[in-house]
Formats: sequence, C-alpha cells, structure tokens
Amino acid sequence: MKRNEEFIKKADALFPEIYISEIHPEKIVNFKKDETGDAVSTECVDFTACVLDKGARLCLDFGAHYVGHPVLKLSYEGSHPDAPAWIRLKFAEMPCELFENALEYDGWISTGWIQEEQIHIDVLPCEIKLKRRYAFRYLQIEVLDVSGKYSLKLEDAVICASTSADVCNISEYTGPYQELDKIACNTLKSCMQEVFEDGPKRDRRLWIGDLRIQALANYATYRNYDLVKRCLYLFAASTYDNGRIAACIFTEPEIEADDTAMFDYSLLFIPTLLDYFKATGDIQTVRELWPSALWQIELCADYFDENNLVRDLDEMGWCFLDWNLNLNKQAGAQGVYLYCVKAAIELAGVLNDAQTKERLEADYTLKKKAAALLWDEQKGVYISGKDGQISFASQVWMVLGGALDTDESTALLSRIEKISGAEKMVTPYMMHNYIDALLEAGLKDKALEKMIYYWGGMQKDGADTFWEMYNPENPKESPYGGTIVNSYCHAWSCGPAYFLRKKFFRIV
Amino acid sequence: MKRNEEFIKKADALFPEIYISEIHPEKIVNFKKDETGDAVSTECVDFTACVLDKGARLCLDFGAHYVGHPVLKLSYEGSHPDAPAWIRLKFAEMPCELFENALEYDGWISTGWIQEEQIHIDVLPCEIKLKRRYAFRYLQIEVLDVSGKYSLKLEDAVICASTSADVCNISEYTGPYQELDKIACNTLKSCMQEVFEDGPKRDRRLWIGDLRIQALANYATYRNYDLVKRCLYLFAASTYDNGRIAACIFTEPEIEADDTAMFDYSLLFIPTLLDYFKATGDIQTVRELWPSALWQIELCADYFDENNLVRDLDEMGWCFLDWNLNLNKQAGAQGVYLYCVKAAIELAGVLNDAQTKERLEADYTLKKKAAALLWDEQKGVYISGKDGQISFASQVWMVLGGALDTDESTALLSRIEKISGAEKMVTPYMMHNYIDALLEAGLKDKALEKMIYYWGGMQKDGADTFWEMYNPENPKESPYGGTIVNSYCHAWSCGPAYFLRKKFFRIV
Repeated sequence: MKRNEEFIKKADALFPEIYISEIHPEKIVNFKKDETGDAVSTECVDFTACVLDKGARLCLDFGAHYVGHPVLKLSYEGSHPDAPAWIRLKFAEMPCELFENALEYDGWISTGWIQEEQIHIDVLPCEIKLKRRYAFRYLQIEVLDVSGKYSLKLEDAVICASTSADVCNISEYTGPYQELDKIACNTLKSCMQEVFEDGPKRDRRLWIGDLRIQALANYATYRNYDLVKRCLYLFAASTYDNGRIAACIFTEPEIEADDTAMFDYSLLFIPTLLDYFKATGDIQTVRELWPSALWQIELCADYFDENNLVRDLDEMGWCFLDWNLNLNKQAGAQGVYLYCVKAAIELAGVLNDAQTKERLEADYTLKKKAAALLWDEQKGVYISGKDGQISFASQVWMVLGGALDTDESTALLSRIEKISGAEKMVTPYMMHNYIDALLEAGLKDKALEKMIYYWGGMQKDGADTFWEMYNPENPKESPYGGTIVNSYCHAWSCGPAYFLRKKFFRIV
Repeated sequence: MKRNEEFIKKADALFPEIYISEIHPEKIVNFKKDETGDAVSTECVDFTACVLDKGARLCLDFGAHYVGHPVLKLSYEGSHPDAPAWIRLKFAEMPCELFENALEYDGWISTGWIQEEQIHIDVLPCEIKLKRRYAFRYLQIEVLDVSGKYSLKLEDAVICASTSADVCNISEYTGPYQELDKIACNTLKSCMQEVFEDGPKRDRRLWIGDLRIQALANYATYRNYDLVKRCLYLFAASTYDNGRIAACIFTEPEIEADDTAMFDYSLLFIPTLLDYFKATGDIQTVRELWPSALWQIELCADYFDENNLVRDLDEMGWCFLDWNLNLNKQAGAQGVYLYCVKAAIELAGVLNDAQTKERLEADYTLKKKAAALLWDEQKGVYISGKDGQISFASQVWMVLGGALDTDESTALLSRIEKISGAEKMVTPYMMHNYIDALLEAGLKDKALEKMIYYWGGMQKDGADTFWEMYNPENPKESPYGGTIVNSYCHAWSCGPAYFLRKKFFRIV
C-alpha cells in the first residue's frame, strides 16, 4: 500500500468533535418469541425493583438506536456476595437478535461481530464501564450465575452515546413522510463517528459506496462538511501501490487501505468529490484531490476491450453494484464508468483544466457509444455479459451514466419493470441508485412510490434506523444465514433524508 | 455486624507487600481426553509459530501453579483484520478442568467461580492485560471466530504472578519427602495474597479454619508474621453484633464479616492467636485480641446442656469439622471446645490473668468430665448424637482436646481404624487434624504413614499444589458435581510443610 503522509496529516487535523449524551432506558421490555420470531408483548417496570437470580433476564429498551459505551451500576440483595456474578450482555438493534444463538450461527459473516459479552463481577456494588462500543436499542442482561446467598440488582444503566453529528445543525423537516426522514436521520447520526461508518454494528468503517450516500444526506441535514473532507483525504492517503483507491479504509491501529478494490467503488471517489464541491465550494480540496480522482479513470484503461466495452466478469476485478450474487456486472460497470467520467468532466471544468476536460469528453463519447453495443433492440433494454443477462442494475447505471437521453431513460425504466425475469435489486444501496435513476429519468412520482414502498416497508417492519438489507417480500430474510449478524443501521440506507429534503419536497 | 475501627486501621497498616514476578509459558501442551479424563500426551512447540484460525485451541503450560494477571500479546497473519476476533480463555489448575463445560455444570457451587472468559478483540496487534486475577498452571486459548481474511497469532504470554510470600525467607528443606514439602510450600505461596486466602481460585478469602493451618505452615516456611497478625485483627475487626467471630471475612469492597458462623471456627480463633504468640512472642497483640478470643468461649455457654455436653444438632448452630454430610457433630464439637479452652488457659497464663485462668480451668474440667458421657464403654470409642454415631472426627477432636490421657488416646486412634462403619474423613482439613491427633497420641510413624498415603496420593495423581478435597480411593471424585469448580490449590491442605519441618524431621 502507498501512503501519503501529507494527506494523513490533513485527515488527522479534521478529526471530528464527538458529541456525547447520556441516555437512560425508557422501559423494560419483555419480548416473547412467537412463531415468526416477532416481539409480541412489552411491559413497563421499574428495573431497580427487579431482583435478578440465576437464569433471570432483564431487557432494557433505550427508546431509540444509539451507538456508544454502556455503563451499568449493579448492587445486590441478600448476604454479602460469596461468589462472582457471571452475566451475559446482549446488545440488539432489533428484538429478533435476542432470540438467536451466537454459537449456532453458521453463515459466512464472522460471529466476532455479534454484540454479546460475558462478564464476571468480583466485587459488588460496582459500576461497569464497558470498553467496547456497541450499536443498539435493546440491552438484555442475563444472569448466568450468582450464588444462593445473594441476588443481583441493577441500579442504573446509561449509554454514553456518541456521534459526530451536531444535532443543532439540522433543520426541522416539515414535509410529508416525516417518520421516514427521522429514521433516515437517525441512521446517519448513528453512522457518523470518527469517520462516516457503513454500519456502527458492522463493519464500523469507511466504505466509498456508503460515503457517497451519507455525504449527500449529511449536506441536507447535519452539514458536517469537514467529516466528508476528512474521509476524502483518508481514501487518497492510503491507496494501492498503483494509486488505486481502495473500497474501504481502516483507521485502527493506524490508517490503512483494505486490500479490497472494486471497479465501481474506486471510481465513485470522483462523484463524491464533486458532490462535496457542490455542497461547499471548497476548490482547494478539489485541487489537492483531483490527481487522485482522475487517476482512477486512467487505471480503468486496461479493463476495456477494443470496442471500449468493459470486459466481462473477473477481468475488471470485483465490481460491487449490489449483493445479488447472480448479477452480471458488465453493463452496470459500463454505466458506473460513464457516471463517474461525467463527474470528472464537471470537476475538470471547475478547475479550468480544459485539456483534461476535452480528453475526458472524448473518452466519455467513446464509452457511451460502446454502451449501445449492450442494447438489446428487440427487448428494449441493456443486456449484460455473455449470457445477455437483463437486470435492474444494468438499466439503472446506464441511466445514471447518461447513456440515453431522458425520454429513452423514462421508457427504459418503465419497461424494465415489466420484464419478469429481470434480476432484482436486493440492497438499499442499489435501491438508492434506482430512486436516483427514476428521478434522473423524470419519473418523480414513481421514485417516491418506490421509496415509500421500500423504506416505508422497513418502517412498518419496525425499523428505528434503516437496514443494510431488506426484501419487502420477505422481511425476515437474512442473506447471512441468521439475523444475529445483520446490520440494522446501515449508512447506504439513509438516502430518504436526502431525497425527501432535496429532491421530492425541497422544504429545507 | 459490629465494626472495630481501631482494629481495621491496624489490619490496614499491615497490608502486605505483594511480590510480582513475570512468568512465561514453559511449553505448549496438547491434552487428549482419554476414557478417564486424564491428559495422555504433551507436545513442545514454539507458540509464536502457531497460526490460529476459527476453532483453533492452544494450551500453554506455565510449568507450575501461579496466581496473577495474565498479559497476552496478539498479532495477526493475512489481511488487515476486517472483523473482531472472538476468543475464549480457560484457566485451569488441573488439566481435567479443560474438558468440562461450564454451562453444563449443575452442582451447588456457583459457576461464577469457573475461570473462563470470552473476549472480543477489535484492534490488532494488541496487548490484553486481564483485569481479573486467576489461579492456574494452564491457559487454553480457543478461537471462537476470526474472519476468513486473517489468522490470529500469539506473540507472547506472561503471568504477572503475585504473592505476599517472600521466597527469600524460606529455608531449604533437606529432609525426606522433599516433593511433598515443595508442593505444600507452593500451595501456601499461592494462597498468600492480601490475606491468607483459602483458595486463590475459590473462595479467595479468609477463613479461620484455613488460617490456623496456613499460619503454622507459614511459621515453618515464609515467616510472614505480619500477615497472620493482619488476619487476626481482621477477624476481630468485623464480628456479629454479639461479638461472635465469623467463620470468614470479606475484604472487598470493604472489610465485612460473612454472615456464616460456625461453632468450631469461632473458637479456633483462640489457638490461632496462641500459635501466633508462640511463633512471635508478640504479647501486645495477644493483649489487644484477648478479649475477642475469650469472648468466643463465653458465647458458647448457651450451647451446653445441664450435663455440660454440647447440645446435639442444630442447637449449637453449624459446626463444620469436615465436608462429610453424614457426620454428627456433637462429640467433635465437644472436643473442639476442649481444644480451644486449653489454648485459652495457656493464653491467660501468658497474660498473667490468674483469675480467668482459674475460671477456664474449672470450665475445662467440667467439659472434659462431660465428654466421658459420650464414651461407649463397650466399643471403646466416643459416640455422637442421639443415634450414637461413631466417626473419626469425634475421636480426633477428643484426642486433640485432651479428653483422654496419652495412652488412652493411642489406643483409641488405633481402635477406630478397625471399626468398619466409622464415618470417614473427606477433606485434607480433617486429615490435617487427624495427623495432628496421631502425633498428640505419640503415633508418629502412623502419622507419617497416613500423611504419605494421603498427600503423597495427591502428588501421584498430579498435584502441583494440594487440593481442597481428595479421596485416595477415588481421585477423580468431585463432591461438587464436576471438577470444573474444584479448588486444586487449597490452604487447609498445606500442612505437610509444617508437619515435615516441625514435627517429623525438625530439620529447619
């Protein structure tokens, strides 16, 4: 990996102020697992009145999703404790997480992410300040053992909740669908920490795909411009040896690019820089990061064939687009490339770099023309890969890349809905781009309808913050083989705050 | 409970120096569970060469039993860790503990005592300093999960081992059975912490029954007289409201007597004070603690019937004697009382308190005479309780209490061995008193033979330190329903260091 120490210094200097608030539980909840795993009952009780013996469980509801360090004050009733208390803590974003067994999870996500601790308490009364950070609304305390001579008592529980979102900065949103806006804002707030994290439960780090969406929502809400700037510098500070921007950056124990590169994610650095400029007018940052941005386009040269089409499959490396494992990425990648070169052209204009602008425009024309080679005249959609796969993702990115004019885009996005075999979208990330494409194609009503169906579906299904994955047709589905590893507060899902405030109603 | 602040101050002022040494693992061991749960193979490997993936286990052998705080240095191999590592640590005094499942233990001891932790590691490389103290020779590290992108590596492991035993103070023991002496000394050393603990794994606190034996072994070895003095003041500092000395004292979060009182343990404060005086000549301490000691005898008045016999069963409260649940305590309690009044008479003499001495002598004569009422003329042994139970414990304490003259004692202790139905001894604590009684009865050879059979049996069965419970006829027996809660380093078992050095061979 290549490090740019100047950029690291700039990123460090932009380390955000972390706002801490102390949050107390609102009530005790008593979830019972019904056949479908839902919570079916809740009870309000004063937890300080609870006497906790071996096997007892106490589930606290903090009323909303928070990210932070819990502090528990414990005492006892009965004789002086004659054995350590042994407790298990489960931190849950959603109640369903409480009903899963960490050791039985057998999916491909590391169970290291499961927010569960076992703690021994040698001296009572005591105050336990947990050193790790958790993302949760519910905290279940389970007494694995005490002794026959005493019972545990919970005297107090507090979350020292952290965020780098300054809630004083946000304007009240007075338009329709306020609940969606609120959930989106809470999602963003929980993800705003020392960097824009993808999910504060998992993976707790900076990914470009998430950053682009978070930054847009942030400009419409908490307006922490410096945090976006810091993240842009972080990506440019640690890259592959050839200057390729990584998909994700680690910040602990020191700043280091992940050895994961994705065709689309590297390129998306460019529109993210452009959005930042549009929000701030900070030309100095654009000037400093422009070489890093432009270089991502140069690095793509090898991925195109003699017809200026992205080579299919693994030849371009991993292109993310969506978590649909059936998805062929060729057409989508071509669209992403066009979308990002468009942004680069705009940035070159901003910088009065006429020569580069001209070169990029020429490249854009070639690649746009090549995109037409993927057009299936008979079906009236883009196809992708050697098997000619039809997917939403391909159409969405071609529209966003400007492969078609607006009328054609409008027709395409209406047509694709009627093709029954088209590969579907599975993540809020892809759905965000779909809403964006619908808006780009002038289909504002349909965009709103789709947003309400998808994000409103999460709301109906109990979301306090928007999720990493959601299938409205099967809300309990987990692509990871168990809901216990799901991230129920995920940055790429915070788009509604941006769309509602900036696109649909422009109220703030 | 009643507190004596002056005594607490004195105890605090005697807080011992804690000697810390850094102990590194000697080797990796690879225990395989055979049919009887034994360790059947060990391997030497350089642990820094081990790559630990999900499910991997690494068991370190530190070569001997230690008490302290472990420090682990961990790093990784592969990509930058993209998920927390989740590990389980098991600390074992004996290998058999590694083969038990804490959550399956179903006995009456709290599983809070089981030395096992689950830890999540968010940042690698790292140094983990465990805050809790453990008593162990073996440390098993089990990787519950990492991720597919990296493996854990153990770079270093250290125990910051603690004891208040100054090893420079001990004289080399050059007599026979040096291995027994060594194991006993190690047992005592591990139990010498901020107080004389009963067991550093469990219960980690100050009990009189253990203290009396520890103090005797300590005078013959590490000679930390102040630690005994501190413990005597602690018992006198926090008592029942009526001044009764509790069986055990808690020191955290502050000094407080346990609400467990035992007929024998309260009284045993007296010979423990006498032994301390004999070892140190510290008349000032005897003078200050004498009222507390003497008062334990006064408090017993109500427990005797009109014939000066201890009332049977619950009327005297709990009298410990041994962990044999069938044992009737009446005769043993009478013997303990005589033993402790004898010590009180000696202390009254030391203090030139002629009046008290005379009163105690009169009481002793009455109670000794009463003891004869429990003598079964036909069987030639003491019987106990309404069912006339015959037990070793009854004979042992009557002998120690001086109920018989030496010849009669000699005959009695030979005779009891031949009575097949006599209730047996089950703890090293009771065995210690048995050895003491044999010596008192002039049966030195038999005392040595019994000590070698019992403590030597533990040695043959793999003891690094002597155990809380041992049945030579069934070494794998656990009275607690699982070896995982057994204490394999228990103070009341350290007697061989005292017996070998002071009674059998008098070499030091």
